[in-house]
Amino acid sequence: MNVDEILREALQLYKPSEEEEKYLMEIAEKIIRQAEKYSLNYNNIIRITLEGSLAKKTWIRGREEVDIFIHYDSSTPSGEMEKQIIDLGFRVLRDLDGSPRLMYADHPYVEGEINSVVINIVACYEVTPPNWLSATDRTPHHTKYVVDKMSSQARDHVRLMKAFMTGCGVYGAEIKIKGFSGYLAELLILNYADFTGAIGAISQWRPPIIIDIERHYRSEDEIIKLFPNQPLIVIDPVDKYRNAASAVSEEKLSTLILSSRLFLKSPSIDFFKPIHAAIRTSNIERKIGGRNFVSILFRLSRWKPPDVLWGELRKSEEAIRRSLERLGFKVYRSDSWTDEVETCMIIYEIDKDVLPYVRLHQGPPVYHPNCLDFVEKWMDNPERAAGPWIEDSRLYVLRVEPMRNVKNLLKREIEEGRVSIAKGLIEDVRKGKITTSVYGLLKNKRLAPFILRFINGRLPFI
Amino acid sequence: MNVDEILREALQLYKPSEEEEKYLMEIAEKIIRQAEKYSLNYNNIIRITLEGSLAKKTWIRGREEVDIFIHYDSSTPSGEMEKQIIDLGFRVLRDLDGSPRLMYADHPYVEGEINSVVINIVACYEVTPPNWLSATDRTPHHTKYVVDKMSSQARDHVRLMKAFMTGCGVYGAEIKIKGFSGYLAELLILNYADFTGAIGAISQWRPPIIIDIERHYRSEDEIIKLFPNQPLIVIDPVDKYRNAASAVSEEKLSTLILSSRLFLKSPSIDFFKPIHAAIRTSNIERKIGGRNFVSILFRLSRWKPPDVLWGELRKSEEAIRRSLERLGFKVYRSDSWTDEVETCMIIYEIDKDVLPYVRLHQGPPVYHPNCLDFVEKWMDNPERAAGPWIEDSRLYVLRVEPMRNVKNLLKREIEEGRVSIAKGLIEDVRKGKITTSVYGLLKNKRLAPFILRFINGRLPFI
Repeated sequence: MNVDEILREALQLYKPSEEEEKYLMEIAEKIIRQAEKYSLNYNNIIRITLEGSLAKKTWIRGREEVDIFIHYDSSTPSGEMEKQIIDLGFRVLRDLDGSPRLMYADHPYVEGEINSVVINIVACYEVTPPNWLSATDRTPHHTKYVVDKMSSQARDHVRLMKAFMTGCGVYGAEIKIKGFSGYLAELLILNYADFTGAIGAISQWRPPIIIDIERHYRSEDEIIKLFPNQPLIVIDPVDKYRNAASAVSEEKLSTLILSSRLFLKSPSIDFFKPIHAAIRTSNIERKIGGRNFVSILFRLSRWKPPDVLWGELRKSEEAIRRSLERLGFKVYRSDSWTDEVETCMIIYEIDKDVLPYVRLHQGPPVYHPNCLDFVEKWMDNPERAAGPWIEDSRLYVLRVEPMRNVKNLLKREIEEGRVSIAKGLIEDVRKGKITTSVYGLLKNKRLAPFILRFINGRLPFI
Repeated sequence: MNVDEILREALQLYKPSEEEEKYLMEIAEKIIRQAEKYSLNYNNIIRITLEGSLAKKTWIRGREEVDIFIHYDSSTPSGEMEKQIIDLGFRVLRDLDGSPRLMYADHPYVEGEINSVVINIVACYEVTPPNWLSATDRTPHHTKYVVDKMSSQARDHVRLMKAFMTGCGVYGAEIKIKGFSGYLAELLILNYADFTGAIGAISQWRPPIIIDIERHYRSEDEIIKLFPNQPLIVIDPVDKYRNAASAVSEEKLSTLILSSRLFLKSPSIDFFKPIHAAIRTSNIERKIGGRNFVSILFRLSRWKPPDVLWGELRKSEEAIRRSLERLGFKVYRSDSWTDEVETCMIIYEIDKDVLPYVRLHQGPPVYHPNCLDFVEKWMDNPERAAGPWIEDSRLYVLRVEPMRNVKNLLKREIEEGRVSIAKGLIEDVRKGKITTSVYGLLKNKRLAPFILRFINGRLPFI
């Protein structure tokens, strides 16, 4: 297949049909009607609109979301607005059997689901740029900008871009992914005209990358000064002081660059529908071989929004990694997984699961007041394996490691509060189960796909 | 015992009797007479003198040496002087059954042995300070300085200082020790008046330490600028541009500081006659436990002066240490041993003797031209355990370590010339035997004391 054929096939996979569009628009209208009914109770609601990819007609199959925005008068106190959006969102979604629940990013909003379609009911202030009052105020302006600028052909290229990003695992600005938002995909197509142009440009990217579609700035130097240390800077057309790509991690940026290069070298539909190649179980023993893993499996004692949970998980993953390294283990890689409801897992691949029998223990310099105490302390210490001896100006001993097993060591570190796990998870992690056997984890059917991916540890599109 | 009693006992142990002195002086006179006889053949020899500790009457029992200096006219070409001293030294010592052999430090000299007393026959130029022509020219001036300045009481304190330094393993400026020369011990006593004063001062030393007995300089700043980065600076009274302590390693300086502090805290005769406490063999298995060692035992294919051999050994010890660390082993400590005739051993204590099953292998950044090659190379590589994945902007894989045993790895490194072993030893080391079993080494009676000391790894005076 040549590139054109591949893109045609990808579009067939991801571009919604007219029926699908009609179906989603009907849901949206139903919600808006219901919301408008309730809004009559409040005199500070100015209007209610459909925003996001459905409004822009750039959504892809499998990622349908209906984003309904309630526009408030800018004089409304934020506390009052938050109270109202919760109240209103819950009423509307309950009426439509939408199983509403409270979510929060910068501010609370209400999420629901109608016939497997995700519904978000969000509050924003009606403002004129750049007088933003809350983080959501820009969204209607984003919608308007894209609707005004984008041809229907370009919208298909956005869909290809989103599908490609999904395939490469970089689509989504949420904490779990730290990748590219839908708006960012749209801006890239607006900037590079079409999918092939964008992929070609991305394959040549080398940070820092600067994109300023509306030419808000006169020079790149000016932009770099304003957004220092950011590898990808895409000036938001509706807000020159905002980098629309600030949520993109260096890892996900690199992943997109690499997949663009690989796609251009050997184009394939697989980039759009990656097979998370499960390792055959017959192979698994050879794959695991002499490798060492340690993991913590724990239950969530209470529900929290995915962005909050993932933030806590990544922070804890990092803290435990530092702790393992402090203990003397080399951490090759790590990852976290959660069903976002009740179970979490953090896993590490390490160089060994037992510490060496002895450890080098550095004492004070010989001219330090404490050095005689050090000598005295160690001479009759049963933990002394060798020493004290002098190297340069310091005393050293080799001490027998009293506890050597990673499982016990990590357990103690966590119990004694020496690991800076996210506060919201610390009690759950303490009750968790630490294990070094991946065979055991593979028996858990819900965990197995994640564990297999971790063992294989390669990018899905390779 | 109080300090005075201890010092009295130490002096009894180390101060030679009048008979011993007479005996040594007779040997010295005999050599000088013989040398004078031969010197008549050469018209450029000005005089022949006894130098060193015997001339200064500061030698200690067990370290007797007779240093005979042949003074040459300063117009003698150094090649001519070298030829003559070898010729003359060999003749004199052969006549006296002194089994002469050629040695060299900066220049060649002749060493022999008469009734277990070491004899050195050395050439120097007769010059007036500071017009030195060779490294040995200062020695007669050192002798004269000490003889002029030192009372007979102070000479006993020098003996105590030398005995203490011997006990602590820091006596000797030779490469093997990198410690304190006899002349340096004398200067310390001249500076601090007596043994107790010197030990008291040394116990308070904190580098950089500056001693300028003859006040050649007006300020310490001036001295530090002239001798940068030297922890101990003792201005040579007969040569203001020379640091008489430049051969002292930081380790041996620290050892002397620590032993002074320990001696003042708990004075004991043991500091003057350290028992290199052999570990009882019954204890040895418990001592070795789960520790890991690797050693190379090799034979010398030809004799060389100890200073040359020790220089090569230490260089090789350091090179192999770096090599082990490059391979992935942590080196806790190392040491070398030689009988200075035919056998050498270099030994390391390491954290493990087998590498982990996998190793982290860093690839290029995703925007580097080579990164697609890296992906291709690793995808079908049987050594790939996991990856490629992306961290920050780089590719990584985990690769299976094809060879993991320290013995085989080190053998290969040496064979393939990747270890910068001293040239003079490289062939001998290649033929050497690498082993990880210290039990095996302990069966070798000549090695056992060294191996036991290494296993115990502590300062002899502790």
